[in-house]
Amino acid sequence: MYRFPTILLSRHRLYSTTSQPLELPLSHPIYTIWGSNTGVGKTLVSAGIAASSLLSPPSSVKFHYVKPLQTGFPSDSDSRFVFNKLLQLRNRNNNNARISLSASNRVLNFSPATTARENEIQHLVGEEGFISSELICKTLYAWEEAVSPHLAAEREGFVVKDSALLETLQKCFSEVSESGVDKVRSEVFCVVETAGGVASPGPSGSLQCDLYRPFRIPAILVGDGRLGGISGTISAYESLTLRGYDVVAIIFEDHGLLNEGPLFSYVRNKVPVLVLPPVPKDPSNDLMEWFEGSHYVFNNLKEIMLSAYFERIKKLHEMPSKARDIIWWPFTQHKLVPDGGVMVIDSRCGENFAVFKDQKTEVITPLFDACASWWTQGPDAKMQAELARDMGYTAARFGHVMFPENIHEPALNCAELLLQGVGKGWGSRVFFSDNGSTAIEIALKMAFRKFSVDHGLILDCHEDATNERSAELMVLALHRSYHGDTLGAMEAQAPSSYTGFLQQPWYTGRGLFLSPPSVSMYNNKWSISIPEEFQWENKELENITFASRAEIFHRCRDNSELAPVYSSYISKVLSGFRGSSKIAALIMEPVIQGSGGMHMVDPLFQRILVNECRNRKIPVIFDEVFTGFWRLGVETAVDLIHCEPDIACYGKLMTGGMIPLAATIATDAVFDSFIGDSKLKALLHGHSYSAHAMGCMAAVKSIQWFKDPFSNPNITSEGRLLRELWDDKMVHKISSHSAVERVVVLGTLFALELKAEGDNAGYASLYARPLLQKLREDGVYMRPLGNVIYLLCGPCTSPEICNQLLVKLYERLEEFDGCSN
Amino acid sequence: MYRFPTILLSRHRLYSTTSQPLELPLSHPIYTIWGSNTGVGKTLVSAGIAASSLLSPPSSVKFHYVKPLQTGFPSDSDSRFVFNKLLQLRNRNNNNARISLSASNRVLNFSPATTARENEIQHLVGEEGFISSELICKTLYAWEEAVSPHLAAEREGFVVKDSALLETLQKCFSEVSESGVDKVRSEVFCVVETAGGVASPGPSGSLQCDLYRPFRIPAILVGDGRLGGISGTISAYESLTLRGYDVVAIIFEDHGLLNEGPLFSYVRNKVPVLVLPPVPKDPSNDLMEWFEGSHYVFNNLKEIMLSAYFERIKKLHEMPSKARDIIWWPFTQHKLVPDGGVMVIDSRCGENFAVFKDQKTEVITPLFDACASWWTQGPDAKMQAELARDMGYTAARFGHVMFPENIHEPALNCAELLLQGVGKGWGSRVFFSDNGSTAIEIALKMAFRKFSVDHGLILDCHEDATNERSAELMVLALHRSYHGDTLGAMEAQAPSSYTGFLQQPWYTGRGLFLSPPSVSMYNNKWSISIPEEFQWENKELENITFASRAEIFHRCRDNSELAPVYSSYISKVLSGFRGSSKIAALIMEPVIQGSGGMHMVDPLFQRILVNECRNRKIPVIFDEVFTGFWRLGVETAVDLIHCEPDIACYGKLMTGGMIPLAATIATDAVFDSFIGDSKLKALLHGHSYSAHAMGCMAAVKSIQWFKDPFSNPNITSEGRLLRELWDDKMVHKISSHSAVERVVVLGTLFALELKAEGDNAGYASLYARPLLQKLREDGVYMRPLGNVIYLLCGPCTSPEICNQLLVKLYERLEEFDGCSN
Repeated sequence: MYRFPTILLSRHRLYSTTSQPLELPLSHPIYTIWGSNTGVGKTLVSAGIAASSLLSPPSSVKFHYVKPLQTGFPSDSDSRFVFNKLLQLRNRNNNNARISLSASNRVLNFSPATTARENEIQHLVGEEGFISSELICKTLYAWEEAVSPHLAAEREGFVVKDSALLETLQKCFSEVSESGVDKVRSEVFCVVETAGGVASPGPSGSLQCDLYRPFRIPAILVGDGRLGGISGTISAYESLTLRGYDVVAIIFEDHGLLNEGPLFSYVRNKVPVLVLPPVPKDPSNDLMEWFEGSHYVFNNLKEIMLSAYFERIKKLHEMPSKARDIIWWPFTQHKLVPDGGVMVIDSRCGENFAVFKDQKTEVITPLFDACASWWTQGPDAKMQAELARDMGYTAARFGHVMFPENIHEPALNCAELLLQGVGKGWGSRVFFSDNGSTAIEIALKMAFRKFSVDHGLILDCHEDATNERSAELMVLALHRSYHGDTLGAMEAQAPSSYTGFLQQPWYTGRGLFLSPPSVSMYNNKWSISIPEEFQWENKELENITFASRAEIFHRCRDNSELAPVYSSYISKVLSGFRGSSKIAALIMEPVIQGSGGMHMVDPLFQRILVNECRNRKIPVIFDEVFTGFWRLGVETAVDLIHCEPDIACYGKLMTGGMIPLAATIATDAVFDSFIGDSKLKALLHGHSYSAHAMGCMAAVKSIQWFKDPFSNPNITSEGRLLRELWDDKMVHKISSHSAVERVVVLGTLFALELKAEGDNAGYASLYARPLLQKLREDGVYMRPLGNVIYLLCGPCTSPEICNQLLVKLYERLEEFDGCSN
Repeated sequence: MYRFPTILLSRHRLYSTTSQPLELPLSHPIYTIWGSNTGVGKTLVSAGIAASSLLSPPSSVKFHYVKPLQTGFPSDSDSRFVFNKLLQLRNRNNNNARISLSASNRVLNFSPATTARENEIQHLVGEEGFISSELICKTLYAWEEAVSPHLAAEREGFVVKDSALLETLQKCFSEVSESGVDKVRSEVFCVVETAGGVASPGPSGSLQCDLYRPFRIPAILVGDGRLGGISGTISAYESLTLRGYDVVAIIFEDHGLLNEGPLFSYVRNKVPVLVLPPVPKDPSNDLMEWFEGSHYVFNNLKEIMLSAYFERIKKLHEMPSKARDIIWWPFTQHKLVPDGGVMVIDSRCGENFAVFKDQKTEVITPLFDACASWWTQGPDAKMQAELARDMGYTAARFGHVMFPENIHEPALNCAELLLQGVGKGWGSRVFFSDNGSTAIEIALKMAFRKFSVDHGLILDCHEDATNERSAELMVLALHRSYHGDTLGAMEAQAPSSYTGFLQQPWYTGRGLFLSPPSVSMYNNKWSISIPEEFQWENKELENITFASRAEIFHRCRDNSELAPVYSSYISKVLSGFRGSSKIAALIMEPVIQGSGGMHMVDPLFQRILVNECRNRKIPVIFDEVFTGFWRLGVETAVDLIHCEPDIACYGKLMTGGMIPLAATIATDAVFDSFIGDSKLKALLHGHSYSAHAMGCMAAVKSIQWFKDPFSNPNITSEGRLLRELWDDKMVHKISSHSAVERVVVLGTLFALELKAEGDNAGYASLYARPLLQKLREDGVYMRPLGNVIYLLCGPCTSPEICNQLLVKLYERLEEFDGCSN
């Protein structure tokens, strides 16, 4: 198919890191004025809102008008227009005589092509008993040429980075907030007027609707009353909602075409639609009469804006207590949730939550999601925006459709990508389900069937025989493993806090559980820890260390002295297991045991274990729900441990952290053990939303995005590895910290265990809580696993951001160390 | 907050039922030309594509130009323009002398205000050895006034229903297909040019992008090269993708503003962007030179369109065999999937799939999803479109965010709606998970804890005690029940085909399973069937019938003769159950047992059972995964059986059939049994995507939509019931059919059991297969449960559609009866 030549895009311009977190104060209403096209009257609307706020006694108001991007300057200046109109309006009407208006208009940054400077102040003193109001007009950046900012910026050599623009805007917001410290909420008002249409590019080329997204300021959309304007208005509205903005009202100029009818109908009465009188076309008209004739509409609009603002504030304040009353959180002892401990997440932008910070300061502030929302997250802001479009498309195209014996594009594409990626070289079949736990239950059923067929437990497949229980099947698994919370998945893991009678009276633990040797870094050195059960004789093995992490994963360790130690231990255990029970599957998390406390199992041990099982025709299941899709720096942990499973389970990050979807991948040999003449021999397992289109589409996008160097700058040139994300020096420094027991660092994961004893150690420990509370103040959201804490970034996260996280963690460790001693 | 007065919208104009299924032939390329605004040159692009197709020897081509909606007629006529320009272009260039061009231009339907008629034909005979091509231009509907079609239609009294317009368009497509029977694919071409912008209203007021959606024709977007045009083009593109259209190329007129740069960057090189030379503005210019200068661009565009078409055809043909190779379908014996039995679902529009019908006829055709895709579906087309927008918004705003100890708007709103709806009167807490099966596992854990606390099995909550197993806990459940496929859910159901060693070697069946009395209709009468175990003495009870279905659900039956029979049976069973095992929960599907074969359990029996358990402090779980959210004509089956659970599980239809989400609702008393000082006493269960924002948002929309008479016309005035969807006469007729054993009809469900014996009965039976195969030819997609078949519509589906389904079913039953005897 025809394609234009590849254009290299600077993908990081969109959300390049700002030096300060971008906070949106909520102390007073702040709105963005968007246009469904250029020339639809955004500035008239801004001026109208200003007039309605400033020239309506009795209250004295501070009104901030912000124009971030002005081209065609100085002949065009929207902020000057607002400034002038307000002064004219104040003077025109006798009713305004009592109002003392102080107005200013400034341009903060100029393109070098622009010689004009603009800095005007006027004071109009009112009569006795006056109301003192203030209009503050600001243009943040101005260019001379009357073209789109991205062109003007390029042509005039005055390019402004997105981060710089956002920081300047943030400063304006702080000023808005400061200007209102002694005022009630509605006495300060701010509107930010964008340039052109909603998706017109800013100076860097980023579309404005993407550019301003981190603030997610509530929106007023100025629609188009002309012929074709219904379509343009609706499409602009959709572009805004497709970026997560809340559009509070639509307003447009009447052109006699009754465009409001279809617009009303479209928004189903959920967003107010306002119509302004026709604007006189004569350029000499000073619009004073028009503004007066529009006064009631602008008053309406202002009221709508105020009430939406108050509604939002009210909701944000009420949500924590409402949630406490009716929500039952997973893995949460509700009695231990501290007062004020419920956090309102207002939105997400890439790796960051936007949270409503405590009830006093009233700001929306970013918080790095360092637990990756239970390890599901991977997207940066750009990927999230694209995923959102794909989700809208897929919902509209498919919703969800029936899967068995049917096929649809997202499911087929997803299955192909899985087999070309994580299942490459061994996987042949993809079975979709909803989450890691169901993927594991399915994997176990697959493995047991394969084992039963291979070991003659199902002599023939007469249907009468289906209910005969010929043997007690068990799994071989590792201590500290975790595979999910449904009963089947639980049965495959060793007894733990999760599995007691209090939690699941039906749990029995149907496994033979081995204690694996593990690897970690301490004091700048990777070393190995071998459980006593191994009873090795060569005592030197106790002190094995590695020069580098790469050495741990090296295949040549197959010839090391440890290999026969592992082999003989495993053989001994397996041959000692006799009786009516049979080991019918090996199940394990390759390399990293996640929930069990972020332990790195010696990959050599796992490889030998797999080989021993294979020799005994015991099917091997890899639980890659956590480890899959670049979590560990490679697409699949198979690449790290150099041996393949018969069955593997995927979930979490597979959909880029959007929605639940899981996949169990199997070999043809496993699949074949379900083939027969009767439906009863088939795998009779399935969930309602099997292979749902949106999940599959999200997975298709994510799998491709993460491994494509064009979209993921962390992919190394060979394309099989992520570059190192965690700064070596900081890692070493932390690993040498006196409060730290061990460190595990690999791919997107940085974990550490705090030195702790007694009740301070283990899953139920609250030991790490004060440390994490401090880090939350620093803008880092972490969740502990008892006394183990970790940072988890996305596969696209820049090493700079990771380093900032490490620095913050180290600083807080220093304090923590102090207070715990 | 300020709101405009409610406007009543005719919500059914969008997708009113057409008399014929709307099929899109794929034998030749058909495209829609959309504009990002009015006046951006859609007609020039159409003419350009026509020229490129017709005037490029060597092949002889039939080119169909279709303009469905023309306003401003006769002074404006886009089809006349295309007609004239093509004739001019043919005559102008000597190279074209060999081409014999036969061209026609017709207008099919006129507004009464339009007196002009247009029906022109011209033949231009080419030189010796000519190529004979044909241009067929058609306007489907024309209005006089040069305004949006919805205004013209109203003002001229010539309103065209969406269904009529779609049917006329469908006829055009049939003609396209017929005109090409003797031609290769690329020798016939069709473009459909829309009116105005993508979201401009059609004659009924429906937005054109919604109106044409059932065909989902691939799109060419004519963008805007002017100032502000980047934004308009991107927004229009997003409106199309947000309705599930595939945009194959973007093309626009150059205005010197380099709009292609940002557009390239936006589509990330995945959609070609083409730039046309500036169009001369002089109205007297005949554009011949412009067309010649644009020839290479249009040739490019045509090639892009052709190759996308061929790619689509290729994919559709290949998908079934690819799927067979790598997909592992749930509940499917792959060996029994017949050749040609894999169906490609190209999209969904409301209750209908759009499938690629067999490989010969090559059409995309609708198929009513009568299995509601495993009972998940509810939305009509309009609801699906709105849900799609909400999905885009929520993905952009939240993606997914961490839930424990946090709160976000969709989760809180969803929980509130659940407690005000299905949980009203008893539920206090909402625990989110991913699917019915996980919701059940959670419910069981809740019930067991509650029971253990109430019955002193956990004497105190010292953590040391957590692993002591003080008793063997079991459930009380019904035969033929089904609660999901994970082990815990399976353990709570009676042994069946799903539970044997072949399927799940770990299944033991940890329940006491009762055979419930059931109710069904046969030969026009509702009657009751009581299992032998009840050993009732009053033999008259054997012949109980009901005058109406309502009678079955009436509370006064508490005083009927059956009540003490049920009571004493239950008491006997419960008191007979002794030993170390304890019945620690009752679990059942209220009213209808779904997977077990669509059996209606006598609601009186279930009510008495609940009461008996409550008296014994045994927690009661309702599995409403199938029965919830209007499936049975009420929001919750609690309203049918007049008794409340302690815990209830929801899934499937809760999200409107979009994506997986489940909820377990519980009383405060249940919740309280998890409160304590230790985390280990909390409910340590959770899934990665707990309360994911998109699922919660879809649920919020769906719960509101289904119960709002404004959006759901099936809601009766009292708001607690759906109106009767299944035609009484047809139901009676079918229930009296000789092939029918029993009928169950309630809410959105119509089920029947075919009379069958031996291997023909039961889950693995293929008995119903030929009947369902025939119904598929009639446009109805059903899936059997052995010899039980059913129709499932959505809560908003019109009774007319339901009746059509019943008529088709009856007709095929007549044949089926014939061939099986």
